Amino acid sequence: MANLQNGYSKKKQLDVVVVGAGLVGSLEALYLAKRGHRVRLYEYREDIRKTPTARGRSINLALSVRGRRALKDVGLETHMIKEHGIPMTGRRIHRTDGSTYAIPYDANTKQCIYSVGRNYLNGQLLQESEKYENVERYFNHKLLEANLKKGSLTFLKTDTNENVHVTADLIIGADGAFSAVRKAMMKRPFFDFSQKYIEHGYLELCIPADDNGGFQMPPNYLHIWPRGEFMMIALPNQDCSYTVTLFMPFTKFKSLDTEEKLLAFFEKYFPDSIPLIGKEKLVEDFFAESPSPLVAIKCRPYHVEDKALLIGDAAHAVVPFYGQGMNAGFEDCTLLDELFKKHNDNLAEILNEFSETRWKDTFAVSDLAMYNYIEMRDLVTRTSYRLRKAMDDFIFWLLPNFWVPLYNSVTFSTMPYSQCIKNREWQDKVLKRTLSFAGLAAVIGAAVAYKIRYKL
Amino acid sequence: MANLQNGYSKKKQLDVVVVGAGLVGSLEALYLAKRGHRVRLYEYREDIRKTPTARGRSINLALSVRGRRALKDVGLETHMIKEHGIPMTGRRIHRTDGSTYAIPYDANTKQCIYSVGRNYLNGQLLQESEKYENVERYFNHKLLEANLKKGSLTFLKTDTNENVHVTADLIIGADGAFSAVRKAMMKRPFFDFSQKYIEHGYLELCIPADDNGGFQMPPNYLHIWPRGEFMMIALPNQDCSYTVTLFMPFTKFKSLDTEEKLLAFFEKYFPDSIPLIGKEKLVEDFFAESPSPLVAIKCRPYHVEDKALLIGDAAHAVVPFYGQGMNAGFEDCTLLDELFKKHNDNLAEILNEFSETRWKDTFAVSDLAMYNYIEMRDLVTRTSYRLRKAMDDFIFWLLPNFWVPLYNSVTFSTMPYSQCIKNREWQDKVLKRTLSFAGLAAVIGAAVAYKIRYKL
Repeated sequence: MANLQNGYSKKKQLDVVVVGAGLVGSLEALYLAKRGHRVRLYEYREDIRKTPTARGRSINLALSVRGRRALKDVGLETHMIKEHGIPMTGRRIHRTDGSTYAIPYDANTKQCIYSVGRNYLNGQLLQESEKYENVERYFNHKLLEANLKKGSLTFLKTDTNENVHVTADLIIGADGAFSAVRKAMMKRPFFDFSQKYIEHGYLELCIPADDNGGFQMPPNYLHIWPRGEFMMIALPNQDCSYTVTLFMPFTKFKSLDTEEKLLAFFEKYFPDSIPLIGKEKLVEDFFAESPSPLVAIKCRPYHVEDKALLIGDAAHAVVPFYGQGMNAGFEDCTLLDELFKKHNDNLAEILNEFSETRWKDTFAVSDLAMYNYIEMRDLVTRTSYRLRKAMDDFIFWLLPNFWVPLYNSVTFSTMPYSQCIKNREWQDKVLKRTLSFAGLAAVIGAAVAYKIRYKL
Repeated sequence: MANLQNGYSKKKQLDVVVVGAGLVGSLEALYLAKRGHRVRLYEYREDIRKTPTARGRSINLALSVRGRRALKDVGLETHMIKEHGIPMTGRRIHRTDGSTYAIPYDANTKQCIYSVGRNYLNGQLLQESEKYENVERYFNHKLLEANLKKGSLTFLKTDTNENVHVTADLIIGADGAFSAVRKAMMKRPFFDFSQKYIEHGYLELCIPADDNGGFQMPPNYLHIWPRGEFMMIALPNQDCSYTVTLFMPFTKFKSLDTEEKLLAFFEKYFPDSIPLIGKEKLVEDFFAESPSPLVAIKCRPYHVEDKALLIGDAAHAVVPFYGQGMNAGFEDCTLLDELFKKHNDNLAEILNEFSETRWKDTFAVSDLAMYNYIEMRDLVTRTSYRLRKAMDDFIFWLLPNFWVPLYNSVTFSTMPYSQCIKNREWQDKVLKRTLSFAGLAAVIGAAVAYKIRYKL
C-alpha cells in the first residue's frame, strides 16, 4: 500500500495554504514546514525583505515569554534576543517636570521584555523559511474569494493582474485584523463576531539617536508619559532611536490643529520630550499623518470543519496596551503545533479543539489589554497602584511559586491568559479577606522595608 | 426665489431611498411620505401582498405600546387592534401534567399585547403607501453595491437580471438582520459591530383550529411551556390556529433524530400539546425543516454623515424573547420623525442625533431580550419570581405613577429602554434597602391578600 513504506505507516503530507506572510503567518509556515507538510504562503503586500524602511520609523514590538517560546521552537530565539532585541527591564515614568523614576517589571527574578523591530523579525522568519524546500512564498497575491468548506481560494496577482486559483487540505487565515479569510467565514451561520474601535487613536513620532549615534534616554526601559486621559510611550530601536507613540482621544488630536496649539500642548504635558524629538521634527511628523484607529476583534469559532482556521490578529486583534498582540499570535502557533502532535495531524480534531479551547484565552487577553490602557495612562501614577504593586512584589518575593502578580503571569509565564485573570481575582479575594487593618499595616510596613532594601 | 412661494419658505422635498420593504421599511416610507418627501422603497423579495402564505404557518408577532404609537401616527392602529389583532392579557403557563395557570401582564390596568400576523401587517403598511403619490415601490431589487457617502446604490433587478443605479439625498437601510446596507457601512473605519448567535435555535409547529373552526385553547394568552433549559410558546392567529415555536439548544434538536425519540420527548415535556398539534403533523412538521438560528446584532454609529442611516433589525436585531423586535424598530421610525420635526429636515443633524442617542436604548432592549429568555423558560416557574412579581404588582397597584415594574415599562410605556433598566435597578435597590425582615413579611402578607382579592 502506498501509505506503507519500510514496514511503518508514512504520515500523509498535508497541503497547507497560509494566507498572510506577516509575523504570525510566517511563523506558522515554519512550524508546519518542520512537521514535513507542504506550505504555500500567500501575501498581499510585496516581500518585506525587499522593502526598505525609513530609519527611525520602524515599528517595534515587545517580545515576551510566549513569543520567545515560539521563536525557540523554530530556532530563532537566541538570535532575536542576543543579537537584535533590546531588553526593557521596567517602565520608566516621565513626570511633567521632566524627572523620571523606574518601575521594574520583575524586581525579583530580573526578567525583562525585548524591544524588537517588526520588519526585522518578519524578515528573519521569512528568511528562515527559505531553508525548507517544502515552503513556497507568493507575494503580491490578494485574496479575492474563498470557499472555505471546499478549501479553494482565488487570488489576484496584483503585479500581473492575473487570477490564481488554489486548493488546499487546510487554509490558515493569518491575514490580520481586517482578514479576508475571516470575511468569508462571516458569511456562514453561527459565526460570532465583534469589532470595537476605542475612542483613542495613535500617532507615531521619533526620538532620533544623539550626535554620537547613542541613545538620548536610558535604553533599557519602556518609557511612559502617563497623563490620565492620554499617554505617550517610547520603545528603543537598534539604531539608538526611539519610536514614540502618542495615544489620545481623536477629539484631542483634532483640537491640536495649529503648530502653536501643538507646541503649547507638548510644553504643558511632555516638556522633556521636545528637545529629544526636536521641535521642527515634532511639528512635521505630527501633521504629516492622521492618527490611526485602534480596533479590538473577537470571534468564534475559529475554524470551518477540517478545512480552515483563523490565527493571530485575524482571530483576535487586541489593543496594544499589554504588549501581547504578537505574543498571543505566536502562542496560537505553538498551541496548534501541540495539537498537531496530540491528534497526529488529524485536521478535524486539531481545528475543533483549537477553536473550542483557545477563545477563552484570547477573549481574556483582549480584556486585559483594554484594562492595561487605563493602568498605563492613569493608574500607574496613583498611590493605590504603587501600594498594590509593592504588596504584590513583596508576596511574590516571599512565595514565588504561590503568588505570581498579574503582569508577571501574563508576560513572564505561559499560564493561559484566562487563568491569569482567575489567579488575579483569587489574589484580590485573598487580600480582601485576610488583610485586617492590623495585617494591612504590617504588609505596608514590610513592603516599604522591601522597597528600601531594593532601592525601588 | 424658487424656495419662496406665496410669501413663505417652501420646504425642500428630500429624495429618500429606503432599502427593505419589510415592516420597518414600509412604516418608515409612510412617515416620510406624510412629511412630503419623495420615497422610493426597494425590496429584494417580491411583493408580500402577492405571496400567499400557507394557512396556519403565518408568523405572528406581539404588538405592544411602542408599535401601536407608530401605527397610530400613520393611521393604522385602530384597524390593527380592532379588526385584526388578538389581545393577549397575560402568559398562560402549561405544566407538564397539562394543567395551566395565568400570569396577567397587567392586573391593575388590564393592558394587553396583541398577536398580529407579520405578513398581514406588512401588507397593510404597503397598501397604505399606495395612498401617497410620493411613494414608489420596487420589488425584486437586490442591493449589490452602495457608496453611502455619495448616496448612490446599485441594485440587481432579479426578474430581468438588469443592474439599476440610484442616487438619493438619504439612504435608509431597513433591510433586516443581515443588512446589505450595513455591510457597506462595515467597510468604513470606526464602525463598531457585533453579531452573536445564541446556543438555542427555534422550530415552528402549528396547533390548527378545531373542527368547528374555533380555538383549541383559550385565545387571549401567550401560552408558554417553560421547561428550564428549553421552552415552547404559542401565539393565536386570526384563523383560530396557533403558531407554536419550540426554542431549544441545537444539540437537543439534533438528539431528537427519530420519530420515537421525538414523541417520547413530547410525551415527557409537552404531553398536552400532542393532541392539539396532532401526532402525525407534529412528526411531519418537526422533521420538515432544520431549526433556525437566533442572532443578536449591535452596532454603532447608525449613520454616515447626512447620507445614510440604519434602522430596525439592520441596526439592532434582537432575540425574540421580549416581543420587542418589531416594536423597537417601529419606535426608531417614531423617534426619527420627531427628529425630522425638531431639526426641520436638516439631515446631518437628524442622523447625528439619532445615532448618538438611540444606541443606548437598542443595546438595552437587546440585553433585556437575552435576559427574558431565561425568565420565560425558567424563572417564571420559580417561587422567587412569582413572589417578586406579586410584590411588584402590589406596589404598582398602590403607587402606579411611582412604581412601574420592568415588564410593564418595556411593554406598556414608551419609557426609553435604558431607563426601564435603570428604573428596575433602582427598584431592586429600594427593595433591598427598605425591606427589613418584618417589612418583607408585611409585604408578603399584603401581596398574598392582593392575590386573593384579585383571584390571581
